[in-house]
Amino acid sequence: MSIKGERLKQHLEELAEIGKIGETGVCRLAHSKEDRKAVEVVKRWMEEAGLTTKIDGFGNLIGRIEGSQPDQPILILGSHIDSQPYGGRFDGTAGALGAIEVVHSMKENGVNPTRTIEVICFSDEEGCRFNKGIFGVRGLAGMLEEGELERQDKQGVTRREALKEFGVDSDMSPSPVYQKGDIAAFLELHIEQGPVLEQKKKPVGIVSGISGPIWLTVTLEGFAGHAGSVPMQMRQDALLGASDIIRRFDDLVKREGTETTVGTVGSMQVFPNSRNIIAEKVEFTVDLRDIDLEARTRLEEKLYKIIEESTAEYKLKVEIKEDTRSEPRYCADWIKDIMKEEDGKLGFDSPTLMSGPFHDALIMSYISDYGMIFVRCEKGISHNPLEFAEMEDIEKGVQLLYRTAVRISQS
Amino acid sequence: MSIKGERLKQHLEELAEIGKIGETGVCRLAHSKEDRKAVEVVKRWMEEAGLTTKIDGFGNLIGRIEGSQPDQPILILGSHIDSQPYGGRFDGTAGALGAIEVVHSMKENGVNPTRTIEVICFSDEEGCRFNKGIFGVRGLAGMLEEGELERQDKQGVTRREALKEFGVDSDMSPSPVYQKGDIAAFLELHIEQGPVLEQKKKPVGIVSGISGPIWLTVTLEGFAGHAGSVPMQMRQDALLGASDIIRRFDDLVKREGTETTVGTVGSMQVFPNSRNIIAEKVEFTVDLRDIDLEARTRLEEKLYKIIEESTAEYKLKVEIKEDTRSEPRYCADWIKDIMKEEDGKLGFDSPTLMSGPFHDALIMSYISDYGMIFVRCEKGISHNPLEFAEMEDIEKGVQLLYRTAVRISQS
Repeated sequence: MSIKGERLKQHLEELAEIGKIGETGVCRLAHSKEDRKAVEVVKRWMEEAGLTTKIDGFGNLIGRIEGSQPDQPILILGSHIDSQPYGGRFDGTAGALGAIEVVHSMKENGVNPTRTIEVICFSDEEGCRFNKGIFGVRGLAGMLEEGELERQDKQGVTRREALKEFGVDSDMSPSPVYQKGDIAAFLELHIEQGPVLEQKKKPVGIVSGISGPIWLTVTLEGFAGHAGSVPMQMRQDALLGASDIIRRFDDLVKREGTETTVGTVGSMQVFPNSRNIIAEKVEFTVDLRDIDLEARTRLEEKLYKIIEESTAEYKLKVEIKEDTRSEPRYCADWIKDIMKEEDGKLGFDSPTLMSGPFHDALIMSYISDYGMIFVRCEKGISHNPLEFAEMEDIEKGVQLLYRTAVRISQS
Repeated sequence: MSIKGERLKQHLEELAEIGKIGETGVCRLAHSKEDRKAVEVVKRWMEEAGLTTKIDGFGNLIGRIEGSQPDQPILILGSHIDSQPYGGRFDGTAGALGAIEVVHSMKENGVNPTRTIEVICFSDEEGCRFNKGIFGVRGLAGMLEEGELERQDKQGVTRREALKEFGVDSDMSPSPVYQKGDIAAFLELHIEQGPVLEQKKKPVGIVSGISGPIWLTVTLEGFAGHAGSVPMQMRQDALLGASDIIRRFDDLVKREGTETTVGTVGSMQVFPNSRNIIAEKVEFTVDLRDIDLEARTRLEEKLYKIIEESTAEYKLKVEIKEDTRSEPRYCADWIKDIMKEEDGKLGFDSPTLMSGPFHDALIMSYISDYGMIFVRCEKGISHNPLEFAEMEDIEKGVQLLYRTAVRISQS
């Protein structure tokens, strides 16, 4: 009882042609013409798999097959098929097409689900176009914020207009489509987007949870001055303060973090950013994540202490803005247990690992138990045309997804 | 025997109206309409001072008064009247108008110079428009480079076109207008553009020399990855490496530098500069200056060692580009001696200090002995509408310039 790897491969390859850039990249921005074209193609595959399809008011593509006991909480499988502007062909698609393959194979293998199954390609997971993502899944969970349809892309097109052009009358009813209890489980397969499985030489991983990031924007303000004329001891150099904080923050995370703590400063703006003027103002971001909330909190407090010490030492003013504070969201033990059992039967010996990046599953976790499967991803590269996963690994991941889905759909 | 402070004040105020921005700022970009208007007004003041004027093929405004011994090496006084795009009213102008005031007062006070005196408002000292400055003075010294007239501003206007619109047929004969031996001395007064005089509570300073900067561009290359998924010990974070280098470089300069060493990283670009992606590439500038060349060289070598160690520690590739390497240029002892004597008579007790920024005098130093006088500048702020110098301080500086010029012109 197995999935059809060849069909999955063909689907992945065909989908990668839509919005293709270069040899290996794709650009399918949310609600764009390419996105719509992809939705049409994937919709056809859903129907071939035996699913009844619809596109909802958020742009989600939903396929459904009724179970023999339609009053039971349902099983949802899914991921997304939109991409980054300079993206790869596996991010989202492996899980979305993998989910369709699971249902298709169940039908062909004569597996009749007790529970109703839905396969969802969530709209705008990436969030690049309107600078706010996991849109479709938040719509389903009743977690959209006010004004989201008025957000504009770089061309000044609003989300509402984009959805209309995409072909849906946007629906912004604030009540969730699914209530707690409607869903038995949500399962998502995704490429890891990190290097851990590659390092462990394992094709597949079972996810323990999605670690919540704290996102901060730190602004340091010193005093500009000519690089040639202000003596060293009279300076208030904002870039120096930022460098000190970045260096010490990294040290802190490496020294006192758990195995799963990651801390990153990825973005920085310097003003006036002139080679012969002492930096007056520096703005940089902080990304701190851990599946272990207590460890994260401990490090966050120490980071504030570092910032306090550095700004005092370099005579800088500081402002800290909190942009996001997500809690870690753990995968359901009972789903992980099923996955581990099936993984054992398949002989994969898959390790358990946490997910640093978010996924649609993060939002689903608020309305359902969930489980995730990761597939090894070359060098951990993602959001890049260089993104690559071996077809063999994807097949193995989807095989595990299939077995888990069969178990849950019949439980 | 004194200068006329009131007239100097009026001239400074009147000039500040040309290209005025806000209450206190000016924008007189090189060869612009405002620059031309300023040249016309200043030309008139030169003529009122008894100078015969001309505008040369580089856009320099030159006033000349013949000495009683016209075969003697001449005395040149001057500075510039172009400004930064968001500049102040004292940078350059204090020295340019101060020089005219010196000659005007000599005439009124019945001082007849033995040597011929020229007053020069050098064209395009600032270099903002064509990203390469001290243009006019380099023209006079025969130090222009090939293709300089083809450099374009942000609107695509070439220097040649700009000069034409300014009203001069650009002259690019490579031979210097002045030869070594033609000039007895060059004197420039300028606001300090630094906080040393303010800190020392002194209105005027005597410059020891212009420290030469080394300008480097350092490019670090690591490996991008998702901030949430790449474990700390697997990272090659270019921003972390840059932060480490910046922090250690500052420490090095403070710990091992002389009193006059300054080291600055003022500009940085991060790629891809996204909050949840580990920085793949960081480019930053280094500005290292000292009037003490040996000390500078020693620190430069240690900086390379720091870069080597940091890039090894953080597994980064590095490329170092040398953009500028200027040697320190010392003021002539005999001119400083005259200044100190006259300063003593005036009772200023002016300290000696080096100049971090360059000035037109830097180029003049290659064809003449030179001396410089600094005027206290509030908080060291310059290249900013907030730039401010007390009229009383400027008068004192110009008084010292007057006495020095009289001595040299009659020697």
